[in-house]
Amino acid sequence: MNPLSEEKVFKDPVHNYIHVQDSTIWRLINTTEFQRLRRIRQLGTSYLTFHGAEHSRFSHSLGVYEITRRIISQFERSGYPDWPKEERLLTLCAALLHDLGHGPFSHSIEEAFHMNHEDWTRRIVTGDTEVNDILSEIAPDFPDKVSAVIAKTYDKPIVVNLVSSPLDADRMDYLLRDAYYTGVNYGTIDIDRILRMLRPYQGRVVVKESGMHAVEDYLMSRYQMYWQVYFHPVTRSSEIILRQIFRRAKELYQDGYPFGFMVEPLPQLFEDKLDVQAYLKLDEALIQTAFLQWSYEDDRILSELCTRFMHRKLYKYVEMDSVDLEMIDEIRREFGQAGMNPEYDLEIDFPTDLPYDVFRPGDESSQKQILLLDRQEQLREISEVSDIVRSISGIHRGKYHLYYPEDKLEKAITDLSPSISRIFKL
Amino acid sequence: MNPLSEEKVFKDPVHNYIHVQDSTIWRLINTTEFQRLRRIRQLGTSYLTFHGAEHSRFSHSLGVYEITRRIISQFERSGYPDWPKEERLLTLCAALLHDLGHGPFSHSIEEAFHMNHEDWTRRIVTGDTEVNDILSEIAPDFPDKVSAVIAKTYDKPIVVNLVSSPLDADRMDYLLRDAYYTGVNYGTIDIDRILRMLRPYQGRVVVKESGMHAVEDYLMSRYQMYWQVYFHPVTRSSEIILRQIFRRAKELYQDGYPFGFMVEPLPQLFEDKLDVQAYLKLDEALIQTAFLQWSYEDDRILSELCTRFMHRKLYKYVEMDSVDLEMIDEIRREFGQAGMNPEYDLEIDFPTDLPYDVFRPGDESSQKQILLLDRQEQLREISEVSDIVRSISGIHRGKYHLYYPEDKLEKAITDLSPSISRIFKL
Amino acid sequence: MNPLSEEKVFKDPVHNYIHVQDSTIWRLINTTEFQRLRRIRQLGTSYLTFHGAEHSRFSHSLGVYEITRRIISQFERSGYPDWPKEERLLTLCAALLHDLGHGPFSHSIEEAFHMNHEDWTRRIVTGDTEVNDILSEIAPDFPDKVSAVIAKTYDKPIVVNLVSSPLDADRMDYLLRDAYYTGVNYGTIDIDRILRMLRPYQGRVVVKESGMHAVEDYLMSRYQMYWQVYFHPVTRSSEIILRQIFRRAKELYQDGYPFGFMVEPLPQLFEDKLDVQAYLKLDEALIQTAFLQWSYEDDRILSELCTRFMHRKLYKYVEMDSVDLEMIDEIRREFGQAGMNPEYDLEIDFPTDLPYDVFRPGDESSQKQILLLDRQEQLREISEVSDIVRSISGIHRGKYHLYYPEDKLEKAITDLSPSISRIFKL
Amino acid sequence: MNPLSEEKVFKDPVHNYIHVQDSTIWRLINTTEFQRLRRIRQLGTSYLTFHGAEHSRFSHSLGVYEITRRIISQFERSGYPDWPKEERLLTLCAALLHDLGHGPFSHSIEEAFHMNHEDWTRRIVTGDTEVNDILSEIAPDFPDKVSAVIAKTYDKPIVVNLVSSPLDADRMDYLLRDAYYTGVNYGTIDIDRILRMLRPYQGRVVVKESGMHAVEDYLMSRYQMYWQVYFHPVTRSSEIILRQIFRRAKELYQDGYPFGFMVEPLPQLFEDKLDVQAYLKLDEALIQTAFLQWSYEDDRILSELCTRFMHRKLYKYVEMDSVDLEMIDEIRREFGQAGMNPEYDLEIDFPTDLPYDVFRPGDESSQKQILLLDRQEQLREISEVSDIVRSISGIHRGKYHLYYPEDKLEKAITDLSPSISRIFKL
Repeated sequence: MNPLSEEKVFKDPVHNYIHVQDSTIWRLINTTEFQRLRRIRQLGTSYLTFHGAEHSRFSHSLGVYEITRRIISQFERSGYPDWPKEERLLTLCAALLHDLGHGPFSHSIEEAFHMNHEDWTRRIVTGDTEVNDILSEIAPDFPDKVSAVIAKTYDKPIVVNLVSSPLDADRMDYLLRDAYYTGVNYGTIDIDRILRMLRPYQGRVVVKESGMHAVEDYLMSRYQMYWQVYFHPVTRSSEIILRQIFRRAKELYQDGYPFGFMVEPLPQLFEDKLDVQAYLKLDEALIQTAFLQWSYEDDRILSELCTRFMHRKLYKYVEMDSVDLEMIDEIRREFGQAGMNPEYDLEIDFPTDLPYDVFRPGDESSQKQILLLDRQEQLREISEVSDIVRSISGIHRGKYHLYYPEDKLEKAITDLSPSISRIFKL
Repeated sequence: MNPLSEEKVFKDPVHNYIHVQDSTIWRLINTTEFQRLRRIRQLGTSYLTFHGAEHSRFSHSLGVYEITRRIISQFERSGYPDWPKEERLLTLCAALLHDLGHGPFSHSIEEAFHMNHEDWTRRIVTGDTEVNDILSEIAPDFPDKVSAVIAKTYDKPIVVNLVSSPLDADRMDYLLRDAYYTGVNYGTIDIDRILRMLRPYQGRVVVKESGMHAVEDYLMSRYQMYWQVYFHPVTRSSEIILRQIFRRAKELYQDGYPFGFMVEPLPQLFEDKLDVQAYLKLDEALIQTAFLQWSYEDDRILSELCTRFMHRKLYKYVEMDSVDLEMIDEIRREFGQAGMNPEYDLEIDFPTDLPYDVFRPGDESSQKQILLLDRQEQLREISEVSDIVRSISGIHRGKYHLYYPEDKLEKAITDLSPSISRIFKL
Repeated sequence: MNPLSEEKVFKDPVHNYIHVQDSTIWRLINTTEFQRLRRIRQLGTSYLTFHGAEHSRFSHSLGVYEITRRIISQFERSGYPDWPKEERLLTLCAALLHDLGHGPFSHSIEEAFHMNHEDWTRRIVTGDTEVNDILSEIAPDFPDKVSAVIAKTYDKPIVVNLVSSPLDADRMDYLLRDAYYTGVNYGTIDIDRILRMLRPYQGRVVVKESGMHAVEDYLMSRYQMYWQVYFHPVTRSSEIILRQIFRRAKELYQDGYPFGFMVEPLPQLFEDKLDVQAYLKLDEALIQTAFLQWSYEDDRILSELCTRFMHRKLYKYVEMDSVDLEMIDEIRREFGQAGMNPEYDLEIDFPTDLPYDVFRPGDESSQKQILLLDRQEQLREISEVSDIVRSISGIHRGKYHLYYPEDKLEKAITDLSPSISRIFKL
Repeated sequence: MNPLSEEKVFKDPVHNYIHVQDSTIWRLINTTEFQRLRRIRQLGTSYLTFHGAEHSRFSHSLGVYEITRRIISQFERSGYPDWPKEERLLTLCAALLHDLGHGPFSHSIEEAFHMNHEDWTRRIVTGDTEVNDILSEIAPDFPDKVSAVIAKTYDKPIVVNLVSSPLDADRMDYLLRDAYYTGVNYGTIDIDRILRMLRPYQGRVVVKESGMHAVEDYLMSRYQMYWQVYFHPVTRSSEIILRQIFRRAKELYQDGYPFGFMVEPLPQLFEDKLDVQAYLKLDEALIQTAFLQWSYEDDRILSELCTRFMHRKLYKYVEMDSVDLEMIDEIRREFGQAGMNPEYDLEIDFPTDLPYDVFRPGDESSQKQILLLDRQEQLREISEVSDIVRSISGIHRGKYHLYYPEDKLEKAITDLSPSISRIFKL
């Protein structure tokens, strides 16, 4: 379907080579919108904890495309009748583009400004963009179809499954890639074996029963990566500061503060007036540049926060089994009395509030299930069969973390009551 | 010597863990100046060719420190009398800080503005900086000593050897790290074996003769990495555009052009008036932000170049065995007549002009030699012993590359003479 | 303590280099008894399932020694007061020699002849052997001490812990090594991190609490390796045939059958009269040679079994949720009527009968516990803290396997009743 | 062409999975003759130097098959017209079976008994064997065709090229596999890239010019593996002892010596009367068993040699730049006078006498060339283009090694003249 005269390859540390055979895919990669993903890190601020984790969403998106391509190739080679061959290009495009709408430091900026990257992805795919032009050449309704796959509303669940499901190309790539770049080897999974075990069946992607242990291993890797990498308290600390910066800058902007540095499209961001063209100008280079410039602003809250973020003077934390509101109020009150700023100098974090998904076996929504196909062609949800998976399902660590600026607390120490001091191990 | 109460580690994909045992090293890593290296990529624009190569000089600097630490540990464990134990901390500091003065897209910016990162490293180390404060606590002349090691003028060559010589910690780390992040496996060397083979001897670091093959392999890896990665023509293309942007922006600035976007310390850069504080504000986030903003400037040359760089619409190239000035003049003339801009739309590149070093065995300067120590305690320069090394020494590929904007050339095609068209395979 | 003039190294794919610093260790490796371990495979018949798994107990023993050496080095470097420095050499010797008594196809031969490799290890260590001579040079009671450590009766539990406990050097090496040689990546564990987390504490080896996830990952890897590799039904099939060969040969020998091939020390083996010198002549080369020769014997049962084993014509199997004795009796009866040999042509296997250990958290025996040390210097057994570990503990797969010769069953098919045929999916 | 109903896979550490799609290949793997390769080590006695190198020719043969399969798949996917599709199965069979005739400790036994493994391979393929039965089912002349490919006389050079040429599947697999199992990383090559660069062209397999550096790297890896692994002097020492054992045993047999242990087919081996059935009984288990048993023989030369080999008490060596016959005669004379056995206690070795092939660029025989195909569809022999390759071509290390039993020499020391003592550094 519009094949390239010669296959193109990208050298990739995770998949060795990424193979591009369709001219449409090649052209999509070369659009302005897709190239922008080079300036958005895959793991946000994690590079402040794991210095190797500087890889971009560009790399990840190519990886998701490549895994999807391999799955489809195998479906076609095996001649499985349940695979709708005509959906190949659509699936590949959706796989490649599924993260197109991510903003800089995605999770934090979304939380701070109530945005959603999936919405933005769909606005870019269907808006006035180079990507849209290329997709429209396939068919006028093709951009909408891509958008529907990404929104999980496309009417063939098997296509949606490949791009977003508990065992999709997205998750497989990020586990492998994040493990590779952080150097944490918990994410290493036997992707070849998993791919061999996938089968299109009755309009869905399922796993042959003999692949159960490989899936267990994949889910355990994910579990470990969440606790070791994605929820790492140092990363959380940097995300908290990031959100505080956004909050403060927005407050100041709304108050008419005369910023020393202000550049498009930051005003639109603060005014909630971003359109697609403005949104596409947002990248992590801009955010970092703004933060470095703002570290010289007169507003001391903003300049201090920016200094913390840029030079990695992060908040410290203490871990608590439980937290009650009274205690929090008391801390805030004492912080205020001691000359600290209770609005910014204390943040409470509970990891399960996090915007990452944890696999919940037994979920009734069939899109969120992993189904095993046994030799009698019976389907069973994996947690019915695997004790391991069942055991992970209910697990969460109920630890609260209190984040605070250690340097300021140390100065305020004499003004704090003994009970509060004890909490912070002073 | 001022040890930490508990060893600190960084998780690193290349060395697994980086171990910090001295409080001085720990504090240096946490300075503003060292943290800035997170925003300078190790391989400049190579990420446009190898999308995985997004790693920073921060990672590399930690790696150089770690290799140096391991070498010294081994020297100490083996009790070699020729190792001056009192130089341990100095050597570690110099290893950690040796790249501190790198600017954004280092090789290109140095060429465009006639700067030198080693000078800047020494200015930062000896200037009014956090790094200087910490080093000065060791001894008032300690910053100068670190600076001297980096300048290769320190009076103990063995210390200089570890940080800069043909077989130093710097080169060993970058080969391994660049191979890891690009995914190109040519750079894989048996570093454990090389480290085991190093010995301090008569005031220098030499290699035991039984390590000859390991050194051959290391030099071949370097040779391969140069041709496969560092001199890659696509990377060269992006570097050319980068330099053109710097050139154009400086011209415009000097002509009083009213930039839509201009921020500190760019004016100082254009006026050659950077001081240490201004220099430290330069990073790749700033350069990328400027370029993205400039892609909307009215000056068409600048906006086009910035668009090319940011959205990776790079120049194409043709390879030629030789190039003569007459031909170049003719091309430029025809380009001009066809409405192209001969100043910007043609660049000639010859890889051996590149600012990378290639090992030249037989070099008379003893600092640039690799010496083998045989069982009779005789020293021999490696190219006397190894045919392989001797054979690499004279090798260079004499291919010229002509870079040009393909889109513009295609439009101008009818205005070009057949002989010129043939050169560009039109 | 009797150091070598220069450290010796072995190149090892798993640990990169194995470092020998003591002359005692070097001499032990070069004994006849230790070299014999080159002819005993680490994974017995697993090479018939995973063709790469041809590695020997020699390699594994070096690996266990190396891990132990690294742990002790770290204990010494950290200056932990709870590590008894004077036990270093003893611990290293016990680590190196702990598998010295393994026989050919160890688990099967032990089961067939009611032997125990640990007993043999101690008999070799304390008997008239080269190993004993070298150990005795350290101190007259040194061989007994080594023997006591291996028997887990040595009076310093911390020494025993390093060599045999749920998180010992033995298990860490075999997980890594078996994963490497089979190519199954489930066994990959972050050994550097685990080693960093170990601490001698109150006479035991414990794990710092921050290493909990690394221990979880290690236990999951073990769990996966058990089900994917060690209990693999094809390997079980070959072990069953192996035991049948031993059984048949012993029967024949006791009946005075005139073997075409019989060589020392097989008669002693069949007569239960092995002494240390005879035992040391047993290796896998001898067993394989006997089996190949016996494949030409007149006794058809023996020759068929040997042919099966040597040329990998293994038994097939069917999986059953449960098995009752009546059914088994019925199968045997019908097999007999159909001209098959019910004694040999049917074997029932239930994996949890297997001679491998699975970690059982909550075990009261403190030697079998993994203890976590938290910041308040409190010890807690890991299953109290980790949901994952608790969840694995009760897991076993209750599947029975019926093994049988497919070729013979296919010939007998018409003589079997429909209900029995159904069991074998005929 | 007779495809399996479901693809079978073997887990392989080097290629991850080996895929079997044809029923013929599957059945060939399961023959007695092919299974015998499990008992022949790929690297002969190298396991005495590199303890990890215990891998078999069975593994290697599967690997050669798999690489060949991948090359052919790629040829077919790319639709290259120069690939003769009808030769697929023939090529795969020849790739799988090319080493079928290897005997135990192949290089040494061939030298000792003037045998040739390629001849044996062809005798097995065309003789009365299970392999021959299966091949004959394809076509009556199919076994002869397979034999012709292995003998390099088949009339389509492209088929021969894939199985034996300087850049064939055999060499690619053994470099990767031997590197993996020894742990020496010099053999690591980018096989995916090399495979991508191969092209069938005018009846041969050639390499696209852009793959030149990958080929250089492959040839350098080979060069390094030869010197680091295949020619390792400790391995040579064990090979020398092995040949001496064969020599002594044959002498004794011919003299009618009453061996305590003698078993089929050793008599046929000593009498040069091996037929195919007898040859197939030879394996390394048998040789090791014989050697262990012979270490108890009364003949002291044989028993000592066998003890040396089995318990790794190898000969030591000294390195000499040159050797003259007079000196050798003098050493032998003095050895004799000192009570040593000059026939066995001195061996001179010169590595380039070794039975391994080194790539010789510029070889006129076109089967031994590596040809590059440039963009103008011109073929050039690689050494014309690559300086590196040209430089390796003439390289050999002209060192002689004198091997001797150190223990005996030390006892004889007082009887040797000073000049001879000096040679052996006594």
